[in-house]
This record gives sequence, C-alpha cells and structure tokens, in this order.
Amino acid sequence: MKAIGARPNKRSDGTDVYPVPVLSDPNTGALITDSLEIASYLEKTYPEKAIFPHNSESLIREFDSAHFRLVIPAVKFIFARSTETLSPASAKFFIGVRSIDVPLPWDANYSEDWALLEKGYNTAHEWYQKTDGKWLMGDTFSYADIIVACCLLWFKRVLKENEWVRISPWNGGKWTQLLADAVSIRKHRKTAAPMKIICLLLLFVLLYLISPRVGAGFKIVNV
Amino acid sequence: MKAIGARPNKRSDGTDVYPVPVLSDPNTGALITDSLEIASYLEKTYPEKAIFPHNSESLIREFDSAHFRLVIPAVKFIFARSTETLSPASAKFFIGVRSIDVPLPWDANYSEDWALLEKGYNTAHEWYQKTDGKWLMGDTFSYADIIVACCLLWFKRVLKENEWVRISPWNGGKWTQLLADAVSIRKHRKTAAPMKIICLLLLFVLLYLISPRVGAGFKIVNV
Repeated sequence: MKAIGARPNKRSDGTDVYPVPVLSDPNTGALITDSLEIASYLEKTYPEKAIFPHNSESLIREFDSAHFRLVIPAVKFIFARSTETLSPASAKFFIGVRSIDVPLPWDANYSEDWALLEKGYNTAHEWYQKTDGKWLMGDTFSYADIIVACCLLWFKRVLKENEWVRISPWNGGKWTQLLADAVSIRKHRKTAAPMKIICLLLLFVLLYLISPRVGAGFKIVNV
Repeated sequence: MKAIGARPNKRSDGTDVYPVPVLSDPNTGALITDSLEIASYLEKTYPEKAIFPHNSESLIREFDSAHFRLVIPAVKFIFARSTETLSPASAKFFIGVRSIDVPLPWDANYSEDWALLEKGYNTAHEWYQKTDGKWLMGDTFSYADIIVACCLLWFKRVLKENEWVRISPWNGGKWTQLLADAVSIRKHRKTAAPMKIICLLLLFVLLYLISPRVGAGFKIVNV
C-alpha cells in the first residue's frame, strides 16, 4: 500500500490501517478508496460503459444503503462462515472489526438468520419486479446489480454447498440467475485497458466484503 | 370518500379512517391510496410523460425513504407551524397522529432543528451535485424531484415569511430554484386529460404531508 502511495487511516490505538479495496489508476495517478467511490471515479474517468446510466449515481448510492440494510440483519452466520475461509490472523482481525457493529456470537440464531435473509431477498425481489427487464433498471445493467450480485457472490464463496443451494429456489431462482447473468456481463464487456478496471469491480467489492480492513497480512490491490 | 368507493383503514379504537391522498381514476375505475402508489399507478397507466424514467421506479422508491430520513430529524418545528395552518379539529387530529412517531413538544429545540434541517439539505445538495443537470437524474425530471420539491412547497406554505427566507441562500439558492423549476414543469406539461392527473401530483403530496389522515372534517380528493 505504501508503494502505491496509499494514505492510512488511524485505528483507535493510533496505529495505521490501510482500507481495501483501493484503486491505483496508472493512467491518471488517482488513488481511490471505498467501492462506491471507486465506481464513481471509474464512471467519470472511463464513461464508455456506464454503470450509473441515465444520471442514476445519486439514486444508486441510496440503493446501496437500502441493500445493506436489507442484508445486515441476517448477516451473522455469513460472517461466521467468512471467518472460516480466512487465515487465522485475518479471521482474528475480521472478528475484531466486524463485531463492533455486529456483536458476537455470530452463530447463535442460525434458523432465525436464514429466515431474515429470505425475507430480505423477498423485498429485493419486489424491487426487481417493478422493472421491465432482468436488471434493476430494466434492460440496463448498472452498479445496483453489481451490488446485489457481489453480495450473492460473497455468499456463494463462503457458504457451505448445502447452504448455498438453499438460496437457489428463492423467488423462482432469481438470485442464482442474476449472479450468472452478472458474471456473464463481466466476461463479455470489452477488455480494453480502461475497461479492465471496471471488470475488476466485482473482485473489489468481494474483497471489501470479505476483508474490510485486512490488517495482519494485508493485500495490495493495484490495477 | 364513501361516494368514490374508498376503503377505510381501522384506527386502534376500531373506528374508520380514510387516508389521503387517494386517486379515483374515472378512465379505469382504479382507486389508489398513498402518494408513491398513485405515482406508480399513473406511470403504468399514462406512460406518455414518465416520472420514473429509464426504469428508475425501484431506485426512486428507495430515494423516497432516504429523503424522508433526511428531513424527519428536523421536522418538529415544521410540524408545529403546520398545526397553525389547520382548523382546530384538523390540528388536534394531526398532533394526535404525528406525535406517535415524533413525540411532543415540537417547538422545544428550534435552533437545533434549523441546524439539522440545513445539514439535511447539505446532504441533499451532495446528491444533486453528482448529476450533470439541475434534476436528480441530470436533465431528466423525475418523481425524485417531485419528492424534494413537494417537501419544499410544504415548508414554503407553513413557515413564516422570515423563516422561509432563511432557506433561500442555502446551497447557492438551490432549493428556491428547484421549487420554481418544478412548479414551472408542472405548468408547462401538457394538460390532456390523463396528464392532468399527473399535474395534480404536487398537490397530492402536499396534501399528504400537511394532512396525513384528515380525520375530523376530511377532504375528498377526487380527480
């Protein structure tokens, strides 16, 4: 992080912490932290393939918060699963940071959390049903869909196989289909140099979700 | 309300209450309650002049909640002013209903509430600054702007003159300009029969804000 000129935040004990994801753009020298700010920067700098189409950035920023509020009440057991995929040092750090907002224990209300998660996705399904197409803005793919897809990708990566398949039938298979469609979009977008950066967004957000502030043994995400 | 076939909700004491605004559409026979649902109905039924352009309905629904969260912490003294514009019976009803969610007294923290209101509008200004035009979706007028404009219209109607002028200089005069532009849009939209209904939206939302459930001496809003 120091090598790319990233500026640290301060922990409460005064030590440095470098948040991820971070974007270092060699074309402009810009260094941007936070998934949403990275997406916003990319939109302004490389507008060829809009992810905030039709001036929807402010609306999608609020959608980001709404989606977060939908998922967070059910997230404890997914946090627990996430720690199982991390190194011991990263797991310890993840638990320390995340338990401030989502108190431990994370695996005490497994059945209730599943019910909350399904309820949240029922609400998300209502959002999607108000459009004419498969994306939140109808036939137009946007960062709103990236937000939803990245969260699903997180679940798919950390949940056990028999847990992930519980989500498959929800809302007529909407979520497995949405994730597959989003991954397909990512694969088929042009891979000209600037667009590569946009293609990495899914990875950025996944990294952010799994490793919000990877303290011990942090990773450099440098494009 | 009974004459147009409106169905009442039940108060906690079992008596009937008829929420406003309500839309009775003579072209289709539809009877719709709630500003947002009315807007959604009009969009589907009379799509000529979209107010949820580019499949933005789900996004604007979340914006509606976000805007509400921005204004509500500062709303006490505006509630107090609102009661001053109502008949004694309506004021009594308004206080009874609204004080459930926004506890009395409403005029105890006047200076603090003004500071909260200005802070809220600073955030709203950040939303608007992320677009290329004067509306929340750039050059495209939408229901998001109607939400913001109607709230401003409410303030303008109930605040004292020397209070309303306090808002004028905020954010470079953004809010008085936005309200003027929204009123201008309303005046210049076509007035073909179906469009008249859309033109009445500003009135609907204002009515909703001022008289959420006008109990004693309720009004019939029948287009």
